[in-house]
Amino acid sequence: MENEPGRPELAETNLTSFLILSSLACDMATVGEASEPVGHDQVINPWKWNTQAIDAALLERFERVTSRKPHRWLRRGLFFSHRDFDKILDCYERGEPFFLYTGRGPSTGSLHLGHTIPMQFTQWLQECFDVPLVFMLTDDEKAIFNDNLTCEETMKYAMDNAKDIIALGFDVKKTFIYSDLKYLGGHFLMNAWEFSKLVTFNQVRGAFGFNESTNIGRSFFPSVQCVAAFATSYPEIWAEEPLQDRHPSIARIPCLIPMGIDQDPYFRLVRDNAHRMRNPSPKPALIHSKFLTALQGAGGKMSSSNPNSAIFMTDSAKQIKTKINRHAFSGGQANLEEHRRLGGNPDVDVSYIYLTYFEESDEKLAEVYKNYREGSLLTGELKKMAIDLLQEYVQQFQTRRAAVTDKVLEEFMRPRKLEWRGNPQHPPPDVTGRVAN
Amino acid sequence: MENEPGRPELAETNLTSFLILSSLACDMATVGEASEPVGHDQVINPWKWNTQAIDAALLERFERVTSRKPHRWLRRGLFFSHRDFDKILDCYERGEPFFLYTGRGPSTGSLHLGHTIPMQFTQWLQECFDVPLVFMLTDDEKAIFNDNLTCEETMKYAMDNAKDIIALGFDVKKTFIYSDLKYLGGHFLMNAWEFSKLVTFNQVRGAFGFNESTNIGRSFFPSVQCVAAFATSYPEIWAEEPLQDRHPSIARIPCLIPMGIDQDPYFRLVRDNAHRMRNPSPKPALIHSKFLTALQGAGGKMSSSNPNSAIFMTDSAKQIKTKINRHAFSGGQANLEEHRRLGGNPDVDVSYIYLTYFEESDEKLAEVYKNYREGSLLTGELKKMAIDLLQEYVQQFQTRRAAVTDKVLEEFMRPRKLEWRGNPQHPPPDVTGRVAN
Repeated sequence: MENEPGRPELAETNLTSFLILSSLACDMATVGEASEPVGHDQVINPWKWNTQAIDAALLERFERVTSRKPHRWLRRGLFFSHRDFDKILDCYERGEPFFLYTGRGPSTGSLHLGHTIPMQFTQWLQECFDVPLVFMLTDDEKAIFNDNLTCEETMKYAMDNAKDIIALGFDVKKTFIYSDLKYLGGHFLMNAWEFSKLVTFNQVRGAFGFNESTNIGRSFFPSVQCVAAFATSYPEIWAEEPLQDRHPSIARIPCLIPMGIDQDPYFRLVRDNAHRMRNPSPKPALIHSKFLTALQGAGGKMSSSNPNSAIFMTDSAKQIKTKINRHAFSGGQANLEEHRRLGGNPDVDVSYIYLTYFEESDEKLAEVYKNYREGSLLTGELKKMAIDLLQEYVQQFQTRRAAVTDKVLEEFMRPRKLEWRGNPQHPPPDVTGRVAN
Repeated sequence: MENEPGRPELAETNLTSFLILSSLACDMATVGEASEPVGHDQVINPWKWNTQAIDAALLERFERVTSRKPHRWLRRGLFFSHRDFDKILDCYERGEPFFLYTGRGPSTGSLHLGHTIPMQFTQWLQECFDVPLVFMLTDDEKAIFNDNLTCEETMKYAMDNAKDIIALGFDVKKTFIYSDLKYLGGHFLMNAWEFSKLVTFNQVRGAFGFNESTNIGRSFFPSVQCVAAFATSYPEIWAEEPLQDRHPSIARIPCLIPMGIDQDPYFRLVRDNAHRMRNPSPKPALIHSKFLTALQGAGGKMSSSNPNSAIFMTDSAKQIKTKINRHAFSGGQANLEEHRRLGGNPDVDVSYIYLTYFEESDEKLAEVYKNYREGSLLTGELKKMAIDLLQEYVQQFQTRRAAVTDKVLEEFMRPRKLEWRGNPQHPPPDVTGRVAN
């Protein structure tokens, strides 16, 4: 994305002035399900959300601190904005502990491409920073917000989704995946109750578009989603023998949340209130992705219920080929002659956009862009490139997915002490609260 | 109480038309904390609450069915009204399973007399029916509704209270005592979420006097208190290997809730919605007590923060004597001569009222009433009778309390299969859902 300077972050306290569509609140993990063109056009601007743009300076610093080249999804602005990501880099530099938190709303048993990209990015962050990750499956929320889903159904989807998530390459030693319906209780719920004391009905009405006829489960649920960002919600991951109380030294461990930009309102709420907890936590840092593009292009929606809107992680190589050839919106001209003469429009071309997701080489991507613009690269050739990359991504996923047994799933979902190294130059201090504090 | 006929039970659907003081909603277990004179005067009428009066016919049927004489607190109208208690007697007669549910809000570590009476009544019901009891300690609710209490503090009080509760004589084989903050999760929480879908903010605003500035925890909490009346919330108590899902055959087990009349709004909510759950439950049956009388008499409040308002379960025999002699409101005359001439008023005399709580013999009580009215029984003599009975009750409690070790506490609070017999003539059928259904 263009490195446009982000507007100064405004005070985050006035939630009601922060207009969002109420529908956004109805779906936790909508990232990847809505569609906006990405690529060189920027429809979503950080200032619209009062967030900080991820600019060249930040990416340079990331590379300096971690010795890792920024992911292509950072370089190309798919993850385009943040709050306090720089403070997470400070932590990493000082060798101080932090953890990652992300989530998925299990409203269906199978994932499509759009679901996996933010998760795959989270997996990459885990690899870069070598830190614990908690992965929340909001089967409770899906059952509350969807009149046709029962808790038993969403819990089943959560298990299916968890296997897919594991297949993305997360490290079992430092990853705890949990179903809300199975895990919630104890310190997590104590945090949710404590947090709920800090938030009024008026505030959630403003932030999420609720009204007086909204059910009381929906009104309360933001508490659950918010306190998932507090380290004290997971007493088991920090020590073999978890502390009985929610300890201040655990509360102080910062959190970084990769997420779709539509989830920002939830986390404004936790950023506004984290310091008001009895054991204050730092404001969680956020890193936001844009919406991903459906096969139909801008305005379409990658939808689990429409097989032709998205590449599914269960699609065969042949299905992928057919979907791209038949359904991927093309920016090419009506016929070969006109394409050679006028050139295509990569900015709206779904195959090109998918190439921006999966082609690692910036040079090659720039060349494709140029050649397609000029008309020397044909639509069929562009589609072929996208098909090859997508087939490879999905095939690799399927191979790893086949290895995810029930036993592997069980281990990822077992509350237990996680093992991680953090910054190898600065190993993390004890965060169990036993010695320090 | 007088056997006045209860008005027909009205439809329970219009919660908002059911005016209650908002403060009532702020305290789960207020029974025993407010004060209204009981005895021959009836200030609280069942029709005011649209409930059924407990009349002579019902008590006769109780005695016929259970072969137990109705408890003096039933005979004397301390438990004065009900909803569907007759249906519970039907169940018992047919040998069908049901369970008892009651609760306590642990806002302080020590109980007074007023707290223990409804609990002691519940213990008696358990003995009569030989059925499982779940005893909820709402440490979550006390932390949400009281700005000065943390979850850690209320959880500590819950443990202290549980030891006192155990000392009232509950049978460990058929009693599960739980702290919400420790136990909630799994099927209980699934029920709470599912129930919360059925209730809007407007409804809890109407029923509990909330407004838009009420925090979202308070709005949600009624879900938790309500679903405690569903058998599926306790998968462990019904079988050695609990079912993984919330089974319809478990959902159908009815519940009887002994409670203070001020808690009725919570349970109207569950009665209005129990059939709307995916696995429908019967409307819980309710049996209501009046408020208990403080030492100061009508209008006073037995309060944990005022040592002179109540007899505490930790009081020594000497303290009890002093409190009754110095602080118990007397219906006697200003001096001996006037008392002999005019007689006393037992209806407002706290010592007499306490006699109605603890003197088992109806004949002796009637005689005391008559003699005090006539002036032949003096205030000092009446006080002495009350002191003797209270000293005995508290002393017996203290003896049993001394035997409640941490290990005993642990066993009562361990989620486990309970053992009970129900009606010995009609042993309960299998309720695990494994064979039947």
